[in-house]
Formats: sequence, C-alpha cells, structure tokens
Amino acid sequence: MTDRVSLFEVSMRDGLQNEPIVVPTADKIAHLHRLLAAGLTDIEVTSFVRADRIPALADAADVVAALPTDTGARFWALVPNPVGLDRAFSSGIRHICTFLSSSETHNAKNVNRTVRESVADLRRVMGTALDEGMSVRAYVSTVFGCPYEGYVAPEKVRDLVLTMLDVGAQEVALGDTTGIGTPGQVTALVKLLVDSGAPIERLALHTHDTHGMAAANVYAAFNAGIRRFDGSVAGIGGCPYAPGAAGNAATEDLVYLFRGLGVETGVDLDRLAIAGHEMARLLGRELPGRVHRATLGAAVPARKSA
Amino acid sequence: MTDRVSLFEVSMRDGLQNEPIVVPTADKIAHLHRLLAAGLTDIEVTSFVRADRIPALADAADVVAALPTDTGARFWALVPNPVGLDRAFSSGIRHICTFLSSSETHNAKNVNRTVRESVADLRRVMGTALDEGMSVRAYVSTVFGCPYEGYVAPEKVRDLVLTMLDVGAQEVALGDTTGIGTPGQVTALVKLLVDSGAPIERLALHTHDTHGMAAANVYAAFNAGIRRFDGSVAGIGGCPYAPGAAGNAATEDLVYLFRGLGVETGVDLDRLAIAGHEMARLLGRELPGRVHRATLGAAVPARKSA
Repeated sequence: MTDRVSLFEVSMRDGLQNEPIVVPTADKIAHLHRLLAAGLTDIEVTSFVRADRIPALADAADVVAALPTDTGARFWALVPNPVGLDRAFSSGIRHICTFLSSSETHNAKNVNRTVRESVADLRRVMGTALDEGMSVRAYVSTVFGCPYEGYVAPEKVRDLVLTMLDVGAQEVALGDTTGIGTPGQVTALVKLLVDSGAPIERLALHTHDTHGMAAANVYAAFNAGIRRFDGSVAGIGGCPYAPGAAGNAATEDLVYLFRGLGVETGVDLDRLAIAGHEMARLLGRELPGRVHRATLGAAVPARKSA
Repeated sequence: MTDRVSLFEVSMRDGLQNEPIVVPTADKIAHLHRLLAAGLTDIEVTSFVRADRIPALADAADVVAALPTDTGARFWALVPNPVGLDRAFSSGIRHICTFLSSSETHNAKNVNRTVRESVADLRRVMGTALDEGMSVRAYVSTVFGCPYEGYVAPEKVRDLVLTMLDVGAQEVALGDTTGIGTPGQVTALVKLLVDSGAPIERLALHTHDTHGMAAANVYAAFNAGIRRFDGSVAGIGGCPYAPGAAGNAATEDLVYLFRGLGVETGVDLDRLAIAGHEMARLLGRELPGRVHRATLGAAVPARKSA
C-alpha cells in the first residue's frame, strides 16, 4: 500500500510575484517545461492582477497563451477580483485561484477589503467562474496567525474554509502566509476542519519556511490526513527585500520528505533540482531552498566529526 | 501538565570547527555568556583535537580556563582519543563528549579507524574519564545514512548505541551528521532503540538541516519520546565551503518549534536571537538559521497575497 500525495507548484506565481526583476515570458515558459519534465501536474502559472501592482506578472496573458497543450497537467491562475477573472477567462485559462485572509488587517492591506466584503466578492467571482465551467481553488491566508494581528481564531478560519467549499471551491488551501505555524497548530486545525465536516481530500496546505517549520508542518498535516501540498521550486516566494528570509516551502524539500517517508509524489527530484538551479540563474541570486542548496554544493568535501 | 525538553548547544564546537576564520577566545567567551543569558544550560564549548587539524578550536584550553563558574550550566568538550582526554582533563573540564560513526567509510575518513577499533578506543577513553569522575556523552554519527555509503543498517546503529550506554555514557546523541534523515526513519530508530532496552531519557537527537528536515525530525523524535535535542545558534555548523549549505539544526528554530508546541525549553528566544546576530557579525557572513534570518529581517514590509 503505497501512500501518495500531490503537489501544487506555485513558483511561477507566489514565487515570482515579489521578485525585484521581471523574468521574461520565454524564460518563465522554459521553467514551466522543466517543472513538467520533473513530473509536476498542478502548476499555478501567473496572476491576473494589476500590472502596476505586480510588474513581475504583467505578462499573465502572454504566459497563458504560451502554455503547452495536451500535457495532462492543470494550469492555474490567481484572480483577485471580477476584472482579473475577466482577463483570466479571456486568456483561455480554465483553472483559477481566489484568495482571502483570515485576518482583517492582513486582508485590508492585501486587497483593501474587510473579510466580509471579500467573502461577498469571492461569491460573485467564484459563482461566475463556476458558471463558465472553470474550476476554482481558494486560498484562505494567515490561518496560523497574522503578522499584524498575531492570533487568528481557528473558528474564524474554519468558517471561511467551509464557506469557500460551500461556494464551490474544489479545493481550499490553508495558507500559512508568513510561516508562523507550528505542527501542533496544524494538527489541531485539520482536526477542527474535519470535525466540522470539511472533506479532507478538498484541503491543501500552503506553507512558508520563514521559521524553518515547513517540513514539520507538512509532516504533521500528512499525519492528520492531508494529501495535497503547495511548494515553490528552490523556496522562492519570500519577500526578497527581507535579507535572507526564507520563502515558500521548497518543492524539492517536500519531495525529499515524502521520498524518505516512502510516499509517492510523482516528481523526479533530480529533474526538479535542475529547475531550481536554472531559477537561481534567472534571478541572479541565492535561493533559500535547503535541498536546492545541498544539490548545488553536492560535490564539496564532507565535514569532520559528529 | 507542561512538557519539557532540554537543549544541548553545539555552536562553539560543531558550529565553529569548520569555519574558515578563527574566532578569538574572548569573542567565544562573550558568545558563551550570551548563550547562558538566553537560558541554555548544556553547552559544548570546544574540542581537544589537534590544533593543526582544526585551527578554529586550537584555543581549547584557553576557552576552558575562561569558563564562568557557578552558573549552574554544564560545559562539555569533545575528545577524539586518549591524548585529547589528557588535555581535557588537564584543562579542568568535567564533561566530555566522544564520537564514532555508524558507517565504516565515514569513521575511517573522520578518525582513520574501523568502527570496531573506535569502539575499543572509546572503551578506554570513556573508562578513564569515568574513573576520573567525568561525565560522558557519546555521539553515534551518520545514524540515518552516510554521505559515502548511503544506507546504514539501523541494527548497527542500535548495537553501537547500546554499547556506548553500556560503557557508561550518560547520554548518547543520535547524529544525523549530514542531515540525510526523514521523520519516518527517526520514529523507527527510536522505537528500535527503546524496544532494545535503551532508556529513552538517555537518548538525544543531533540533527542538521541540510535538506530542510531538522524541525520535522525533531518533531518526530519528540513524538517518539525523545526530550533532548542538539542545536547550534543561527544554524552554524555546516561545511562553510559548501556554498549556502545549511548546518546544524538552528537552536532558535528548535526553541520556536517547542514554544509553538507549548513545550518548555527554558530558553528565551529573543535573547538567543541576539547571540545569533552577534555570531553573524563575528563570522562576517550570512548564517543559515531560519528564525535567525527572520529576526534579522523582522522590520521589512509584509508581502502580498496568499
């Protein structure tokens, strides 16, 4: 009985959105092909946000136009609002991601809305998308705490997750947006959600490694029954203006973790490492992923002693 | 019922031993005082190895001579052989650490001995130390795999651990020397050891974050009953010649993990962070610890979106 998880790759969106340099569309597409070659089958490729807000993703329509067909993979785009949805729909992409935050302050800073207003907006956006036959993923952010407010009540997270599922999200990603969470919180939140009726196969965990907890949190979530995890090649996705701060959970690290646990991911780690090394070259900086760095330095002499 | 773990701090030995620069003795002692101020009570302060082999620790006797008294803390020194033990004893230190590897190739490269020869050596070294009233900790290295040989049989690890306990080590640290292990291995090895009669309170876990697994492995070990963990401030201790490679489990990350789990460590994270920031200044390079880096960049703006 081989257990299996599936990975949702966010390097092209969450990874690139805060990078100070704009990666050319052709290089993004080359990266996408490396992700596909490694075996990834769910890839968030861009975001239909205002180009002046996130210049790194201003080529969203061009990226979608250049997507390969007949790969068997699903390509996703983030949409923040009805305008973004229109642009996404026009581009031809069929899978969209929406988002809102569990924290009022974070939500206000992110989209200038109360959480209640965001829920109302997402009902309209998701309803329209579903009517058009698109599939929808919803991120619920700051589920383990907010960088501004601190504590976030798990019951508030639960209510938002259940609402998103009810509105028709095929999947809700529990977003530890700033990597605040620890494994006990993960276990407790997953239990609360399942006890509240959320189907576990429609939950995913989106982690950041800001405090070194990504693998531990993924491991706790796996033990609690989650089988769907977000990763970003080489761990890109942290705010690059924070010197040395870690970003998203590195996809390589997740593949390494599950390989060690004897859990199938369908991803070839050697090929994935190549995607990370090329990304470091494209961005022209050191990237934080641990396995990424270990594979860069694999030929060095062993260290001494215990 | 508050659970509690204790931390064993290795930044002054495992952390500094491979650094290309030699930290002056006075700066080491200042670092030690910061560790004590943070609440650490078991600190490996140096190693009595040949000065030409590890110049960074050539001041071992000077470090021991400068140790504060009446702190309530225990200070430890690594000794590789009878010569090292003599030097340690002369220095006045009362707690020593010995080491051997579960892998023949790693042991040969590290101490130019077969594992069997190392066991015989350690019996003599540990016997002498115990006769002198010293306490002894034993590292058993490469317990989850060897960078040269790959697979290491858990039964071989078990036999070495039981031997070290039998010889009189008050504690055996299970060393994942190159950060190869994953949580399933941790759980299985701890179970094997306990089932074989090893008292769990005499086992510790020594991890490296090479592949981003340190916190996950510590979490798994905690769930398996281990209550003693090695850490190194700011995660120093990787081979600094490997560009970007991570080092030991960062003590800050372990404190963060356990604080999140509601488990007492006795360590003040804010004060510990200061020790890491000062260490980065001493070494003049970016250090890999995640919480270390997050606390360095704490004042940066939040990032956008999910």
